[in-house]
Amino acid sequence: MINVAILGYGTVGSGVAGVIANHSGAIAAKVATPIHIKYILVRRDMPEGPFSDLFVKDFSVIEQDPEVQVVVETMGGTGAALEYTRRALLAGKNVVTSNKELVAEHGYELLQLARSNNLSYLFEASVGGGIPIIRPISQCLAANDLTEICGILNGTTNYILTRMIRAGLSFEEALQEAQEKGYAERDPAADVEGHDACRKICILASLSFGRHIYPSQADTEGITKITLEDVQYAEDGGKKIKLLGRAMRQPDGKVCAYVAPHLVDEESPLANVEDVFNGIVVKGDSIGEVMFYGRGAGKLPTASAVVADIMDAARHIESKKYINWAPGGADAAVSSEGVVTGWYVRADAQPSDVEKAFGDVAFLHRSGAPEEEKAFLTAPMTREEVEQRSAKLGVKSLIRVLGQ
Amino acid sequence: MINVAILGYGTVGSGVAGVIANHSGAIAAKVATPIHIKYILVRRDMPEGPFSDLFVKDFSVIEQDPEVQVVVETMGGTGAALEYTRRALLAGKNVVTSNKELVAEHGYELLQLARSNNLSYLFEASVGGGIPIIRPISQCLAANDLTEICGILNGTTNYILTRMIRAGLSFEEALQEAQEKGYAERDPAADVEGHDACRKICILASLSFGRHIYPSQADTEGITKITLEDVQYAEDGGKKIKLLGRAMRQPDGKVCAYVAPHLVDEESPLANVEDVFNGIVVKGDSIGEVMFYGRGAGKLPTASAVVADIMDAARHIESKKYINWAPGGADAAVSSEGVVTGWYVRADAQPSDVEKAFGDVAFLHRSGAPEEEKAFLTAPMTREEVEQRSAKLGVKSLIRVLGQ
Repeated sequence: MINVAILGYGTVGSGVAGVIANHSGAIAAKVATPIHIKYILVRRDMPEGPFSDLFVKDFSVIEQDPEVQVVVETMGGTGAALEYTRRALLAGKNVVTSNKELVAEHGYELLQLARSNNLSYLFEASVGGGIPIIRPISQCLAANDLTEICGILNGTTNYILTRMIRAGLSFEEALQEAQEKGYAERDPAADVEGHDACRKICILASLSFGRHIYPSQADTEGITKITLEDVQYAEDGGKKIKLLGRAMRQPDGKVCAYVAPHLVDEESPLANVEDVFNGIVVKGDSIGEVMFYGRGAGKLPTASAVVADIMDAARHIESKKYINWAPGGADAAVSSEGVVTGWYVRADAQPSDVEKAFGDVAFLHRSGAPEEEKAFLTAPMTREEVEQRSAKLGVKSLIRVLGQ
Repeated sequence: MINVAILGYGTVGSGVAGVIANHSGAIAAKVATPIHIKYILVRRDMPEGPFSDLFVKDFSVIEQDPEVQVVVETMGGTGAALEYTRRALLAGKNVVTSNKELVAEHGYELLQLARSNNLSYLFEASVGGGIPIIRPISQCLAANDLTEICGILNGTTNYILTRMIRAGLSFEEALQEAQEKGYAERDPAADVEGHDACRKICILASLSFGRHIYPSQADTEGITKITLEDVQYAEDGGKKIKLLGRAMRQPDGKVCAYVAPHLVDEESPLANVEDVFNGIVVKGDSIGEVMFYGRGAGKLPTASAVVADIMDAARHIESKKYINWAPGGADAAVSSEGVVTGWYVRADAQPSDVEKAFGDVAFLHRSGAPEEEKAFLTAPMTREEVEQRSAKLGVKSLIRVLGQ
């Protein structure tokens, strides 16, 4: 029997308890031993429920119980979650987490701590909810030289953009709808400003390219400035606006990771990732492109990924599988300044001024546009160049276009 | 150092040798020991090349060399490949394969033989080429009760259907183009008649639902009867025709696996899997739907999946990870007779006769259709029911419609 302690009893923590309880027979058969929840750490009094008997408020009970072999951290944040993860690893316990913020900020340290104590630190649920992505990158694609990760990593913003495209809602209307449906938090900043996607692309970049990339090293732009007009012009160009996290290995080995809205061609697999779904494209020298698609959040999908990690830790209790990457640093990453893409520009300008600034461009159209408004797609260039060239146009929107 | 012997030097075998040679440093770092190709088994004289020194013609050289720890079977078929796989496992060597026919027909026996000798038998490359699917199902989705696998599993037929849809080619023209491009064999029967997809859905069904399902237990229909008219009517209904392999767990635990063309809604993720790409949807009770997408064939993608398995076997040389399922049998599977789906029917009939037979149906249209031709979509029913109801209509096409 493997004894587990769950830290936190919110959406994910209660989901983990439920998935383990509901699949106990199948799990025991697959792991060849039962998984038993011994404790659930809660920080305040909780209403009675099926797992009330397991509630404890003092982490040291878990820390000091030698029977606990796997600690499941679903608290979120980098405060108590960091402290308890360190203490659990130092106490000889494997740790499984869904906490993307903690992995993005402290992954290197915690992986090292796990390794030096001959323990597993697993985080499949931290990116893409229940979509398998961490293990496929680290194992199935191991014979590839990976070159780029590009994905729709945040379901809330993808829902908002989908509703703007399909239902013609404004950003504010679509956000309100997402909040009413429980897809967006009351304070939606972490989602709509791109920070959630940023943490996830940093985890994927660290895993894929081998050095820790911190969220502060990834330029991050959200979707709050996307207007219905932009969505309509994009449609005229056969494209959809998607918030993408991208991480690319540069020829010198450094990593460029960033989060920004992009116009994506309607024929591309990512364009068809709609609503709250996530899609993550991984490019490698042998494999070409593969994409992983599914619900990137939600109680049960995320919990099932956590439980799969618990099962993996339980199966490898005697012989660890290490996920690993090297320390980060200022020399590990470069900014997105040098990234060359096409650009979508919306501006108040005369066609002749646009052509003087950009040469031959593809103009886009929407019904009801004011006479002076022009929207167009440029040739590939850096942000600095597009800003210089458009300096004399009355620019209203500037969005990257994903290449084919 | 881990010594490897490759059996066969065709497309996949030579790709494996190339991927190992080109990534030797990265592989050694990830596995913590170098992977060394010691032998390549060839059956006839081969021209000189970078690996000529490794060629042997006698399998017993490999079998009797205690230094060989991993045998890579890329020969194909169920003749010598079966014999050598058995002998390799009996000689204490782990086996990695890309041979879908062998796994589909003899997987249970070979997995048992591996297990009883404390060895790995790994076959990630047997389904979906380089797309990670075997390991994600067996590990990442392990906390799910899986209910259905549904996928575009054959790139050749998907290419042919894509060209019929996009370029308006007939089946024969599209097949010829696929042959000219090297996507289809000179004898295309295994692809266009669905046998290749059948082997793959049987492997996925065995892995997902826990008992061996044999190709002879999966009703198989190819795409040779699909006409351009059907493609056009489908488009009018907002659907695309795709060859799908499906495997569903029945309430009684038995498995229904079959291969057949389906009309798929254009909004569905599978409809956007085009050209030679594969897409595999996995449904589970916690995860909902996830899809895995990428190139399902080709030298380097397939070779990279084989090499990832070699690396996994090498990392677990001391502690095996078993993939496992129970023996098959007549009681493991049910035929597709009971599967209820909507149907697309094309027939020479009067609308009144159609409505007499099927009640209220959705008629489809195409330009240039003869006066007497009618095409329509029915309510969900079994094959027997749709055949009975349409018995008096002059049926020209009968194709399943995938539900939402």
